[in-house]
Amino acid sequence: MNIVEKFERLGVENAPGQEVRKQQEDLPVKGDAIPGVPVDFSHGDIDAHPPIPGSIDAYVRGFEQGGAQAYTEYRGRSDIRIDVARKLSALTGSSIDPGEELILTPGTQGALFLAMGACLAHGDKAAYVEPDYFANRKLIEFFEGEAMPIPMRRLDAQGIRDTQGDVLDFGALEQAFAKGARLLLLSNPNNPTGAVYGKEELERIAALCKAHGASLIVDELYSRQIYENAPFTHAASLKNKPDHLITIIGPSKTESMSGFRMGVAFGSRDIIRRMEKLQAIATLRCAGYSQAVFRNWLSEPDCWLSARVLLHESIRNELSSIFQNAGVQATIPQGGSYLFVHMPKLCVKPGQFIALLRAQASVIVTPGTEFGKAYTDWFRINFSQDKQNACDAARRIVALMDRYKA
Amino acid sequence: MNIVEKFERLGVENAPGQEVRKQQEDLPVKGDAIPGVPVDFSHGDIDAHPPIPGSIDAYVRGFEQGGAQAYTEYRGRSDIRIDVARKLSALTGSSIDPGEELILTPGTQGALFLAMGACLAHGDKAAYVEPDYFANRKLIEFFEGEAMPIPMRRLDAQGIRDTQGDVLDFGALEQAFAKGARLLLLSNPNNPTGAVYGKEELERIAALCKAHGASLIVDELYSRQIYENAPFTHAASLKNKPDHLITIIGPSKTESMSGFRMGVAFGSRDIIRRMEKLQAIATLRCAGYSQAVFRNWLSEPDCWLSARVLLHESIRNELSSIFQNAGVQATIPQGGSYLFVHMPKLCVKPGQFIALLRAQASVIVTPGTEFGKAYTDWFRINFSQDKQNACDAARRIVALMDRYKA
Repeated sequence: MNIVEKFERLGVENAPGQEVRKQQEDLPVKGDAIPGVPVDFSHGDIDAHPPIPGSIDAYVRGFEQGGAQAYTEYRGRSDIRIDVARKLSALTGSSIDPGEELILTPGTQGALFLAMGACLAHGDKAAYVEPDYFANRKLIEFFEGEAMPIPMRRLDAQGIRDTQGDVLDFGALEQAFAKGARLLLLSNPNNPTGAVYGKEELERIAALCKAHGASLIVDELYSRQIYENAPFTHAASLKNKPDHLITIIGPSKTESMSGFRMGVAFGSRDIIRRMEKLQAIATLRCAGYSQAVFRNWLSEPDCWLSARVLLHESIRNELSSIFQNAGVQATIPQGGSYLFVHMPKLCVKPGQFIALLRAQASVIVTPGTEFGKAYTDWFRINFSQDKQNACDAARRIVALMDRYKA
Repeated sequence: MNIVEKFERLGVENAPGQEVRKQQEDLPVKGDAIPGVPVDFSHGDIDAHPPIPGSIDAYVRGFEQGGAQAYTEYRGRSDIRIDVARKLSALTGSSIDPGEELILTPGTQGALFLAMGACLAHGDKAAYVEPDYFANRKLIEFFEGEAMPIPMRRLDAQGIRDTQGDVLDFGALEQAFAKGARLLLLSNPNNPTGAVYGKEELERIAALCKAHGASLIVDELYSRQIYENAPFTHAASLKNKPDHLITIIGPSKTESMSGFRMGVAFGSRDIIRRMEKLQAIATLRCAGYSQAVFRNWLSEPDCWLSARVLLHESIRNELSSIFQNAGVQATIPQGGSYLFVHMPKLCVKPGQFIALLRAQASVIVTPGTEFGKAYTDWFRINFSQDKQNACDAARRIVALMDRYKA
């Protein structure tokens, strides 16, 4: 496969945030546009939910430290790693060695990229969940691995768990390992459904990885945003961990810090060491001055986080009711800021409807096919928005679904 | 090749800035340490040569813009790309389309990584110069290409050009293309020697790339720091450009902005498009807030840049005299902040001498083998330091060379 063919498989046009690069197309428009405040559901609105208080001051203090903060080890400045490891050990119920088991990265995307690059060589088989974060499959393809999709057990009006209470199709997972998968990558909470893996389910996953000598990469980006005070099991806290486990986390989402590009990976030292080698040739390091801002993360003012989670829970509930009352199926996330919404039978193609949402309802959503080829009739919305604007936008979505019903 | 073998080829221990992770080793120490202010020649000292005035204010203003600055297109915010493209077109004597021919990246390292990832698939043959920036060969190896080193024509006491005035061995380059190289990567000015490719030489290189349908990636990171007002030819300004040309540049070095992680690549739209796809899964974007700082680059206060270049020229001259007077061979760079220094015959191994420099002279240098396997007897110093400290450190280097002479 040459480089042009390789990249043709890596679509980016429908990725969140890239809508501005879309070509205008002729749409089968019915009726007038519905007025309202535009809402970009492709990512969170950090103006409605601002970054951790004091972030910019911490950044300025880092800048003022000059060279010591600008040029750090590739894995990050030592005293900052010690602080982050301590706080993450407490959060995840594990014990992280700051010297060998943790690396600071340019955003959680950077952490994911480095972890995948450190685990996957040309031709390696890798299992990933469908639906899941859109970059997961693309990363396997970029690193020229063989992608083995593991479907979720169900995703319908009755919910996202099967009768056993499982999210994942264990039969498919066992088959993937039997066929030689050396890696499993998943997000917990799942993106885009908001499903949270239970403790027993994680233990089964870990045991399978261990039995097959496979690496496990768990993206826990949204693990600080769990609703209804439900329990959350961090992979790092499991008693019987796989021999090669990497957890990915960072403040880009719940904490609205994406503009700084801060991420962390922690876990098995052999993988962390390879990730550092890759970081040395990829971006050198998480931006030196941005590293200084990690001091404000996981040590936010009292109640700051719980207030944020409660507010998102209320937005989730309100939007869910709007869709439910209209007979529109949407997942109810146990964690994170996403609703995965099912489109009813329409008289236009799903892609056209998404373009019509932009054109007639001033609403941007992310097509379900970004998360798995089968999800043509779905789209994802990031509901980390101003509550009133989000609800109004959801009503406009429902109105257009009505208008374009088959 | 499995992933462990793959990464064993990617050493990082001797990379600049990683010295802190070195294990202590038993050294054949002679005599006492030489006192003096420690100097880390592995990278520039931004406390001695601070960032562009107003950088942090531009960053804070970016932060204050909120979501519009945090979440940009993957290739960077449109109005900033327009501004950077205009300034870079003027600098390089070319015409850059900000919509299609330019991408903002996390540092110049990020630009280089994306460009190489966008040009090189498993098994592709790629030519690179030796000696050159240490990441170049590692990038080819990481992307599982076949690395074809092109030696420089000479590197000795008489200089870095052959009798034809060439830096590069054109015979080797033609052979590499004949054997199927699809890519040539080089730095201009060269890192670590400071050699600058002449216009005719660049035209010959471009013609060869064009004739063989090969891509050309030119790293011009140090192109704003040319000494003695010598002419510099930007690859983008050539009349007969290769069909696939990418130039890499950024403010991390001369302008001391490394802590922000800002870089740019510009050139052929097909490669830029692939780079954006890769950026979407690698780091998403150059950190949103850092993008705001591009407004201060290439529009610095009057004389700021020329004063900086003159000061570096005077440090270069002073250090060169110190080495020359001691009979130590070192390249005299036409551009950039590096001296490549040759070690005389010593009674200790080169690696031991470099460790002794750390232990007894408080001086950190980068081993020549980072730049090419043949350069065992060389090391690189980045002389973007406080002038007095750098000169004192150079005298300590000379004193230790004397002490450990074979």
